[in-house]
Amino acid sequence: MINFKCNYGRVATVEAFGAEMERVPSYFEELKKSPMSGWMDLPESYDHEEFARIKEAAEKINGDSDYLVCIGIGGSYLGHRAAIEVLGGESGRTRLIYAGNSLSARELKKAVAQLGEADFSINVISKSGTTTETAVAFRVFREKLIEKYGEAEAAQRIYATTDANQGALHDEAINRGYQRFVVPDNIGGRFSVLTAVGLLPMAVAGVDIESLMMGANEEREDILDANGGRAAEYAIVRKFMNDAGRRVEVMANFEPCFAYFNEWWKQLFGESEGKENRGIFPASVIDTTDLHSMGQYLQEGARDIFETVLEIEEDDESVVVPEGDDGDGLGYLAGHSLASINRVAKEATIGAHRDDGDIPVLRITAPRIDAESLGALFYFFEMSCALSATAQGVNPFDQPGVEAYKRRMFKLLGKPGF
Amino acid sequence: MINFKCNYGRVATVEAFGAEMERVPSYFEELKKSPMSGWMDLPESYDHEEFARIKEAAEKINGDSDYLVCIGIGGSYLGHRAAIEVLGGESGRTRLIYAGNSLSARELKKAVAQLGEADFSINVISKSGTTTETAVAFRVFREKLIEKYGEAEAAQRIYATTDANQGALHDEAINRGYQRFVVPDNIGGRFSVLTAVGLLPMAVAGVDIESLMMGANEEREDILDANGGRAAEYAIVRKFMNDAGRRVEVMANFEPCFAYFNEWWKQLFGESEGKENRGIFPASVIDTTDLHSMGQYLQEGARDIFETVLEIEEDDESVVVPEGDDGDGLGYLAGHSLASINRVAKEATIGAHRDDGDIPVLRITAPRIDAESLGALFYFFEMSCALSATAQGVNPFDQPGVEAYKRRMFKLLGKPGF
Repeated sequence: MINFKCNYGRVATVEAFGAEMERVPSYFEELKKSPMSGWMDLPESYDHEEFARIKEAAEKINGDSDYLVCIGIGGSYLGHRAAIEVLGGESGRTRLIYAGNSLSARELKKAVAQLGEADFSINVISKSGTTTETAVAFRVFREKLIEKYGEAEAAQRIYATTDANQGALHDEAINRGYQRFVVPDNIGGRFSVLTAVGLLPMAVAGVDIESLMMGANEEREDILDANGGRAAEYAIVRKFMNDAGRRVEVMANFEPCFAYFNEWWKQLFGESEGKENRGIFPASVIDTTDLHSMGQYLQEGARDIFETVLEIEEDDESVVVPEGDDGDGLGYLAGHSLASINRVAKEATIGAHRDDGDIPVLRITAPRIDAESLGALFYFFEMSCALSATAQGVNPFDQPGVEAYKRRMFKLLGKPGF
Repeated sequence: MINFKCNYGRVATVEAFGAEMERVPSYFEELKKSPMSGWMDLPESYDHEEFARIKEAAEKINGDSDYLVCIGIGGSYLGHRAAIEVLGGESGRTRLIYAGNSLSARELKKAVAQLGEADFSINVISKSGTTTETAVAFRVFREKLIEKYGEAEAAQRIYATTDANQGALHDEAINRGYQRFVVPDNIGGRFSVLTAVGLLPMAVAGVDIESLMMGANEEREDILDANGGRAAEYAIVRKFMNDAGRRVEVMANFEPCFAYFNEWWKQLFGESEGKENRGIFPASVIDTTDLHSMGQYLQEGARDIFETVLEIEEDDESVVVPEGDDGDGLGYLAGHSLASINRVAKEATIGAHRDDGDIPVLRITAPRIDAESLGALFYFFEMSCALSATAQGVNPFDQPGVEAYKRRMFKLLGKPGF
């Protein structure tokens, strides 16, 4: 379903590219052996009983809550926020408030103020339950929930997405009787968007999660049937880009609703590949907005970057440039759809960056902005990332560096044991 | 007012750094000679008559409009949005809708839908009046305004920030009787936040623009009295970073409200320095949020990056971690202010990145989150950027590359003359 186009001639010969592609089946074998490979078959093998419970919980929340406070950070946050923003979610009664994703007092106050006296529920998402940002916010909002509804009803309004068998949040959920959903042991945070981690908030926001899973599974079958197919091509091109000294990958979209999708993508690739003192630096722009800010750099700055354009085939053609006197010099566009102008801007930008600016431009194409396409995109990038890291000789599933600041922080804060 | 700290030992000797600092006075002379140096003395020499008219216009808009549709892109957009988000603006009746900053049909529809049947005014910001994104959105919202209020009242509800003497928007404003504000000839878009471009939207959103200008002027005097002072130090350190192959600068804040400030900063530096196939690539993170996504890369990825932490001295100490049973392992933090934990997280992160991760970390400190500090920050970065580009031998004020995609786009769209 997802298309990929790239002229790799700047960084690899046909032979070298072909030779690397021939190794992809062995990368698959390697990935399958990993204890963290649960995301690979997830779109087919997911827990249908839990999936049904997610939909029921979402229905209950839509019935009794003006707000769902989604408490999570990193991989427990970015995927569903990305999906909901891309799909223009929050169609039902319940609006989402994201909390526990920073230590900012301002943000926490703002979230509490937004809640006001409205009815709400909480979805706390944490494998361990002890992640500082999440745990602090959960204490604050749980207290408010108990104040408002009492212990018993509060427990009916808390949904805990956490480890299946152990951990602080798991134990509390058992003791207090919260409904539980599972962060599987064999799926890391940044690969977890299609588990309950992402699905419950999405379902509450009105995302069609069946179609999302169907799209992901269709993409999975495409990729596996083709021995990696376009996902592998993207992965292998990235390896050659890195080897050729293309140090920064700029993900470019022409729809502002993809801003959080870009953040999800940055975590996926940055955290999977940024280790052992290497890895392509992931950055992003939203065009045409950022052509008026980062456009100069992309066109004429240092030439150690490359660009990946994520484009959508079908667009909303209903908005047209109104007629008007031609003082603004816009008469030649009157009656054109904005979508058609945006498409031309995209082609012009790709041409200008690639041909005038001499930077490689890759193109990834999804058919539409809908749940099915988005599911396919999630899977496409997860597979590309796993293959890309493997091709570059790093483990896509660990993140040894994220503990460094935490160790220092816990020591400074006097946490027992540090 | 703005502090800067950096251990430059990794990239320069004391002698080399001193020698570069000695050249700063000559950079000042060079900058002053530029026809685009109007921003340098602006915080002192600004047009007080226009400033008073901005405040009057803001008062009128607050009196008669639920929404102000701010139409602008790039430098006509990022500065005031940054300020309003940092300062938690929109305190008064009027809320802001940003439009004309992309060619997305979805975004335009969303903005129109948000408007609904509410009362509104328009601030259209464009030096020429023919920037495609801006001109398209202006056509759409002007039509809605005329439909709602008729030609005569609509003209009273349109505020045009544009060239003083010429151009499409200037001419239309004269012909139809819109109130006009000036984009000065000697100040480029990315240096224009303290002109009417930024000040009118900020004033409407309730920003104290006197304090903003006062803070900017205080910083200006500090910098000029010290022959460049800390702004020059930041500029010169950046030159050494670039020379030492530190290819990406990551601006890090510990307050999510700085997200758009980072976008403003990226345009300022990226568009000023990204030319002649060189320039540091500007990127940004919001911590602790992004320590859970880009943290792994910053800690252990390729070591050709450096980090600049923008920190705020005074914080809101009123939010504390609630008591609770210690199932979540958070008992050792109960009663601590969130602000104090955020500060420790910042120090731990700086230590981990600098000492364990071996990347240089610069620190820029502002006293508070208020209009005065923000004015000082705007000026500090403008001056640093102008000095940094000059020290690296590029013109900080041109942007020759931004026309490349436009030429192709206009040709493809059949614009007369292309």
